[in-house]
Amino acid sequence: MRQPSKTASPIRLTVLGATGSVGQSTLDLIARTPDDFEIVALTAQCNADELATLAIRHRARVAVIGDDAHYQALKERLAGTGIIAMSGRDSLVAAAQIPVDCVMAAIVGVAGLAPTLAATQQGCRIALANKECLVSAGPMFMRAVRDHGATLLPVDSEHSGVLQALSAHSPDMLDKITITASGGPFRTWNVTRIAAANPEDALKHPNWVMGRKITIDSATLMNKGLELIEAQHLFGVTPDQLDVLVHPQSVIHALVSYKDGSVLAQMASPDMRTPIALALAWPQRMAAPTKPLDLAEIGALTFERPDETKFPALRIAKAAMRMGEGATTALNAANEVAVDAFLAKRLKFPHIAQIAEQTIESLLRGGSLKEPHNLETALALDQEARNQAQDHLAAL
Amino acid sequence: MRQPSKTASPIRLTVLGATGSVGQSTLDLIARTPDDFEIVALTAQCNADELATLAIRHRARVAVIGDDAHYQALKERLAGTGIIAMSGRDSLVAAAQIPVDCVMAAIVGVAGLAPTLAATQQGCRIALANKECLVSAGPMFMRAVRDHGATLLPVDSEHSGVLQALSAHSPDMLDKITITASGGPFRTWNVTRIAAANPEDALKHPNWVMGRKITIDSATLMNKGLELIEAQHLFGVTPDQLDVLVHPQSVIHALVSYKDGSVLAQMASPDMRTPIALALAWPQRMAAPTKPLDLAEIGALTFERPDETKFPALRIAKAAMRMGEGATTALNAANEVAVDAFLAKRLKFPHIAQIAEQTIESLLRGGSLKEPHNLETALALDQEARNQAQDHLAAL
Repeated sequence: MRQPSKTASPIRLTVLGATGSVGQSTLDLIARTPDDFEIVALTAQCNADELATLAIRHRARVAVIGDDAHYQALKERLAGTGIIAMSGRDSLVAAAQIPVDCVMAAIVGVAGLAPTLAATQQGCRIALANKECLVSAGPMFMRAVRDHGATLLPVDSEHSGVLQALSAHSPDMLDKITITASGGPFRTWNVTRIAAANPEDALKHPNWVMGRKITIDSATLMNKGLELIEAQHLFGVTPDQLDVLVHPQSVIHALVSYKDGSVLAQMASPDMRTPIALALAWPQRMAAPTKPLDLAEIGALTFERPDETKFPALRIAKAAMRMGEGATTALNAANEVAVDAFLAKRLKFPHIAQIAEQTIESLLRGGSLKEPHNLETALALDQEARNQAQDHLAAL
Repeated sequence: MRQPSKTASPIRLTVLGATGSVGQSTLDLIARTPDDFEIVALTAQCNADELATLAIRHRARVAVIGDDAHYQALKERLAGTGIIAMSGRDSLVAAAQIPVDCVMAAIVGVAGLAPTLAATQQGCRIALANKECLVSAGPMFMRAVRDHGATLLPVDSEHSGVLQALSAHSPDMLDKITITASGGPFRTWNVTRIAAANPEDALKHPNWVMGRKITIDSATLMNKGLELIEAQHLFGVTPDQLDVLVHPQSVIHALVSYKDGSVLAQMASPDMRTPIALALAWPQRMAAPTKPLDLAEIGALTFERPDETKFPALRIAKAAMRMGEGATTALNAANEVAVDAFLAKRLKFPHIAQIAEQTIESLLRGGSLKEPHNLETALALDQEARNQAQDHLAAL
């Protein structure tokens, strides 16, 4: 892959999920060296107005809105610009298939599965910001990446950190991969207080400004569990080689330990533009406007072991990772249902982990847990888990 | 270079300075997988008995004692073993020239200059534990490395850390190299108390067990200054790209900052066997018995800026690095004289930095500062600086 530079031809890029947080950060970065990139397609789910603004500003060739209801609005906003407007699920998949050098896969949730899978078929570089591809359909997705010769680059800060700290030379000398967790807003709370936490408490993340769903996942530590599952697939390691370390300052994102006693750690100020820049420029680097890290100013970095009694979601996610066979698909679906219900104040904070565990157990008892081998079976298992989770929710 | 493994042919290795701390750690490591290594030559300065023991244990072909006075003792101890005994400076150089895959250059002081320079002429791998090659003769030594196609690998923990954290892909995206300093035993002392410090105080290093000279250099922070000078040559960076960060726990050894906001750090428990293992196996890794790092157990890593008013040696070393033209040769020689005098209680702790600064200034005024272009001019400047340092010492 070429390094972005004034002399090389620009990198052709499609951004799936352009109006979300990662999509916006990607476009912010690209706007700083516009000659290095050529935007091919931008997509969004509902926000036609913002999508049109971005498409015009970045001179995209195609703009796709997922929800057909907003097609007319998009078409009108793009009239006379020469930018092609499309809509609907199939159009998202079609956009992902337009030949480019790199697809930023930043659609949130299982909705991202089909377009991202379609993008892998190009054999291009996939900058992956969607969790579900690996959590809900890991083995199948990784097979598609391999079969089509795509290059998969993680966009979250933890996995980007692992990638940078991993040495390609001695895979047999790898001892352990550790991803860090801030510990979330309830790190210092006791079990009783956590049990009574409301959504407002849980949405106060100490370090990162993120979407509501992932902020709740940070409070339960489910987010770290999901990241372990992602790391297992991304880096081809066993569950025993994966660990979580609570590090409230979120300065160190990942640590890779080797059998010679050496540990390589990746650090950065919390700014998604750093992992995005790495994925766009890999194996080179490109400049990003992230605040330089000043450890003397920060003063101290602290570490503690995660408490799986206070935060059972982490324990449950680890168990699902070891179980495999669709357990992580079920985990993710049930968790999403439970988080939505918590945000709607329909259940208490500890119920989130409980619903996830009950859903995996009931699917296992029902004989429904089987590793999805294609998109259809992954989506079917996801749906079945959502239904079961709703049942468990109703029975609370 | 081959990876140590049971199937590959063993790595032929010579250890210059086998009875010192780094030499012993090297042989300790090698004894754990003896089939992976073939010891060709071992050398020592005075300790014939220990040298003979090591040569027999590791089945060396040649054993060289630097000091002729101990030749007879060595010869007698090796009688009947088939190991060739030699002595004298020229024999040290000859030992370094016996063809091998790797030379561990662990002779302390300027005495290491000639044998290590001779080793580079093989074009083999040089595991460099000698400071003077880079501090007293950096440009000349690096030219020899390049001219003969040798591979230079640093053995101290800081530079080994930098090597591991450096990405070969985007040298233009490198922002800064930071090496850490424990801060030494006087980190929390005030200027008045430091002025009255005696050798016993200065020899209490908080984290590392090392020789007396380097322990005093850690107390003055001159050691960090010398390491910056080494880093400048090893990694081809400008003085502006080099920084020192005080980190009392000595867990992080080096940090490399990139222009995308990412910082890669190398950590390890303080054990020289980790950087030695890396140099022996590079670009692969080999196992080392270093205690695994447990950050949750350590709890906190702290950082502060170095205080160049309390520790002027660091400021003086940085100035010498920027000055070039033999200033670092003079710095090293004068510092060695001053540290010896401090250990002999002939001067006060703050005089160490003062003597170093005065020596550089007087050589500069006398027109003697000129970049050494060969071994002879390096040794001559070193000697002249020692003489001047003795004069300044006498004038205190």
